[in-house]
Amino acid sequence: MTALARLSARFSRIAALEEAAGMLHWDAAAMMPEGGAAARAEQLATLAGLSHELLIAPEVAADLAAAEAEGEWQAANLRLMRRAHARAACLPTALVERSARANSACEKLWRRAKAAADFALVAPALSEVLACQREIAARLSDALGLSPYDSLMDGHQPGVTAAEVEPVFAAYEAFLREALPRAEAIQAAKPAPIPLPGPFPAAAQRALCRSLAERVGLEPAHFRLDESLHPFCGGTPTDVRITTFYDEADVAKALLGVLHESGHALYERGLPAAWARQPVGQAAGMAVHESQSLIIEMQACRSDAFLSWLGPRLHEAFGGDPAPYAPENLARVWRRVGRGFIRVDADELTYPAHVILRFRLERALIAGELEVPELPAAWNEGMRGLLGITPPDDAKGCLQDIHWHDGAFGYFPSYTLGAMAAAQLMAAARAVTAGLDEALARGDLSPLVGWLRAKVHAQGARLGFQDLLREATGKPLDPADFMAHLTRRYLTA
Amino acid sequence: MTALARLSARFSRIAALEEAAGMLHWDAAAMMPEGGAAARAEQLATLAGLSHELLIAPEVAADLAAAEAEGEWQAANLRLMRRAHARAACLPTALVERSARANSACEKLWRRAKAAADFALVAPALSEVLACQREIAARLSDALGLSPYDSLMDGHQPGVTAAEVEPVFAAYEAFLREALPRAEAIQAAKPAPIPLPGPFPAAAQRALCRSLAERVGLEPAHFRLDESLHPFCGGTPTDVRITTFYDEADVAKALLGVLHESGHALYERGLPAAWARQPVGQAAGMAVHESQSLIIEMQACRSDAFLSWLGPRLHEAFGGDPAPYAPENLARVWRRVGRGFIRVDADELTYPAHVILRFRLERALIAGELEVPELPAAWNEGMRGLLGITPPDDAKGCLQDIHWHDGAFGYFPSYTLGAMAAAQLMAAARAVTAGLDEALARGDLSPLVGWLRAKVHAQGARLGFQDLLREATGKPLDPADFMAHLTRRYLTA
Repeated sequence: MTALARLSARFSRIAALEEAAGMLHWDAAAMMPEGGAAARAEQLATLAGLSHELLIAPEVAADLAAAEAEGEWQAANLRLMRRAHARAACLPTALVERSARANSACEKLWRRAKAAADFALVAPALSEVLACQREIAARLSDALGLSPYDSLMDGHQPGVTAAEVEPVFAAYEAFLREALPRAEAIQAAKPAPIPLPGPFPAAAQRALCRSLAERVGLEPAHFRLDESLHPFCGGTPTDVRITTFYDEADVAKALLGVLHESGHALYERGLPAAWARQPVGQAAGMAVHESQSLIIEMQACRSDAFLSWLGPRLHEAFGGDPAPYAPENLARVWRRVGRGFIRVDADELTYPAHVILRFRLERALIAGELEVPELPAAWNEGMRGLLGITPPDDAKGCLQDIHWHDGAFGYFPSYTLGAMAAAQLMAAARAVTAGLDEALARGDLSPLVGWLRAKVHAQGARLGFQDLLREATGKPLDPADFMAHLTRRYLTA
Repeated sequence: MTALARLSARFSRIAALEEAAGMLHWDAAAMMPEGGAAARAEQLATLAGLSHELLIAPEVAADLAAAEAEGEWQAANLRLMRRAHARAACLPTALVERSARANSACEKLWRRAKAAADFALVAPALSEVLACQREIAARLSDALGLSPYDSLMDGHQPGVTAAEVEPVFAAYEAFLREALPRAEAIQAAKPAPIPLPGPFPAAAQRALCRSLAERVGLEPAHFRLDESLHPFCGGTPTDVRITTFYDEADVAKALLGVLHESGHALYERGLPAAWARQPVGQAAGMAVHESQSLIIEMQACRSDAFLSWLGPRLHEAFGGDPAPYAPENLARVWRRVGRGFIRVDADELTYPAHVILRFRLERALIAGELEVPELPAAWNEGMRGLLGITPPDDAKGCLQDIHWHDGAFGYFPSYTLGAMAAAQLMAAARAVTAGLDEALARGDLSPLVGWLRAKVHAQGARLGFQDLLREATGKPLDPADFMAHLTRRYLTA
C-alpha cells in the first residue's frame, strides 16, 4: 500500500465520521426529543475526538511527506490533506478542549444574554472564547504562514485573505453610500407593496416547498425536507437534509428559505462522486457554498422572470385576491430595501454592510486592538457609520448573532463573498447559456443548474475560491457584477 | 489515572460510537431517502471498525489484567469489559470482514429468494454465512470455554447455555402437545370473534398509539414514535425511538406493536443513568429485553383487565358499532390460537414451537450435523412434528426469517426465554404489588412498571439472565409460570 493509498483510506474514515456527525446534528435540530441533548453531546464529542485523533496520528506526517500524487485531482487532494493536517497538528489537545468548553459555556449564556439584551452577562464568557481564538489563531499563523486573522478565515474559506477582502468591502461601502439613498427614493416613488394576505396553512406550504425543491433539481431519492427552528442544509451528498420553519402568517420565510437551502443542497448533490469522502471531493468553502444558495434564491428565484412564473402558482396554492400575487407586487414585497438592525432580515443591498461591520470588528478583536467590553460601543458606532442607524439595545446590536459566541471568527466575510460570487457566476452563466431567463420565466432552473453543476459543483475542492471563479467566469472575484446586479434591480426607476 | 479509569473512558467512547450507530440505524429505517443507503453503509462500517479497534487495542489487555474493582457494580462492569474484550480479541479482522461481507451478500439474495420462494437462490450464500459463523463460533469457543453454539448464544443473551434451554424447551413441547388441541377445542366452543370493522385512519391510529406509549410510561421529552416497514425500538436510553407501521385495515398491528416496542423502550429508559455508556449500565441481554416488551404487550395489555379499559377507548377513537370493541370480543380477536406457518404472526401458545424448531436446526447447523441444502426438508419435518402442518413452500418455511441470512445464529431462543421470563416476572409482580390488576383495569400500568423499574430496568447488566430472575422472583427461569399463564388464558373454558 502506498503512502497516498493509506492517506486516502484514513481521510475516507475521517469523512465518514464527519458524515455521521452531520446526520446527528441534523437529527438534533429536526428530530431529537429535548431529553436526548446530553447523550447527543457525548456522541458528537466522541466522533469529533476520534476524527481529530485519526488526523493527527503520528504516522500521518510521514505519509504526507512521502506521498506522491499523479494528476491534478490527486495533487489537489494531497494538498488539501496536508492543509487539514497542518491546521490540526499545530493545536494542542488541551487548547482544543479549553476552546470547546469556552464555546459551549458562552453559547449557553449568549441565549440568555440576547433574550435579556444584557451584554454584561455574556462578556466574561465571550472574553474567554476570544482568548482561546487568539491563541488558536497565533498557533495556526505560525504553522501556516498566514496572519492570525487570515488563518481563522482560511478555516471557513480556504485561501482567501483579509488583504483581498478589504478593498472589495471598501469599494462596496463607497457604492452603498450613494446607492442606498437612491434605492430608497426610487422605492418610495413606486406603489406601496400589497402584503400577502395569508394565513398560509403549514400543510399547503410544505407541499409547495417540496415541489419547489424538486423543481430546482433535488431528487426525491436523495433529499428530505423537514422542520427546525433555524433552517439549514445538512446531511451528505447522496442524502441531503434541508429544513425550514413554517410561519402561517408569512409564506416568504419558508418559501424563499427552502429555495436558499436548496441551492446549498444542489451543491452537495453535485460534488464529484468519484472523490466522495476525500478532501478534494468536498465543497470548496463557505463562500462558495453561500454563492450556490444565493444564486438560486437571490439571483434566480427573486428575478422578474421567475416571479412571473411563481406568482400564479402561489395564487393557485393559497387562493384569495390575485392582486398581491402579481409578479410586480411580489417583487416589491420580496425585494424591499431598508435600513435595519438585523443581519438575517436584511435585504440584498444592505446585507453586506452588516458583514463589513462584523469583518472589521472581528479583525480588531483577533488582532488585540479591540477588547470585548468595548464591543457594544464599537458596534453601534460602526452601524451608524455604515447605515446611519443606532441599535436601541445590544440584542439588536452585537448580541444578535451566535457566531462569535460559538467561537466562529473569520466566517462572516463568506456571506458577502458568496453574494458577490453569485452575481458573478450568474452573469457568466447568462453570457454563455442561451435562454436562461426564458427558462426561469417557465419556472425552469435547469439551464442555470446544469451550468453550475459543471462549473462549480463537479469541481469539488479542486480549486480555491479565486481560481474557481477564474475558471468559471474568466476573472477572480470582481464586485462589479454584484453592483451591476443591484443597480439593475434597485437603482432603476 | 488507574487502569479501571482508563478502561471506563475507553468503554464510554465505544458506547458513544454504538449510540451514534444506533441513531443512524434508526434514521436509515425511519427517515433516510433510499439514495443515502450506500453512504450510510460506509458510515456504519467506519463506526463499527473504530469501535472494534478501540476494544482490541494492545493496551486494553494489560489494563484489563491490572484493573481492580471496588463494590459489586464496578466488579460487574469490569467482568463485562473482560467479556467484551475476550469476544472481540479472538476474532481476526479478516474473519470479521469476511463474515460481514457474507452476511450482507446473503441478506440481499434472501430478499429475492423469499419473494420468489426459491431457497436454491440463496443456499450458496447462506452456506458461506454458515461457514463464517462456524469459524467464529470455534474461535469464541476456544477463547470463552463454551461450546461453539453456546458461545454464539452468549453474544445475544450472556451466560445462557443450550444445556439450560434444552430441558425447558422439551418440557414446553410436551405441554403444547396436550394444550394446543384443548385450546383449539375450547376456542371453537366459544362465539366466533367479530372482526374490528375499520378502516382505521392512520392519523387517528398515530394519536392513539402515541397516547398509549405515554400512558405506559414514556415521557414526551425522551421518545419519538415514527414509521418504518419493520417496527423496532432503537435510540439511546434518554432518547428512545420506537417505530410502527399503520395498516388502515387492521388497527391491531400498530396498537399492539407500539405497546410491545414501548416495553423495550421503557427498559432502555430505566437503565441506571449513573452507569450510562458503561457495560454494566446497558441492557442485560436480548432475552431480558424481550421479557420487557412481552410483559407489557402480552401479560399486561392483552389481559382481561386492560382490555376492559381499552375497549371503550378504542370505540371512542374509531366509532361505529360498539360490539366488536367489547372486551370479551377483543380478547377473542387478539388472543386467537392457531397453527400457522409464520413465526411473527403466531399466537402466544404456538410461538415457542417456532422458536424450538429454529433452536434445534441452528444448533445442528453450527455443530456441522446439518448442512444448508438439507435445511428445507429438516424445517418441514420439524414443523410437522411440532405443529402438525407442512409449509406449502419455503417462503412460508425456512426462508421466512432474516436472522440466519443476516448471520444471526443463537438469537432465536431469546424470544421464548423472554416470553417465559415475562410470565415469571408478572407472577412475582402480582404477588407483591397490591392492586396491580385493578390498576390495569383503569388503564394504569404504573404499579407494574414501577416494579419492573426497580427489579429489572435499574439493574442494568449487573446480573445475568438467571440471577436477575432469581433476585426478582426468587427462582431461576421456571417455565411453570408461563404454562400457568397460558392455562388460565387459553385452557379454561
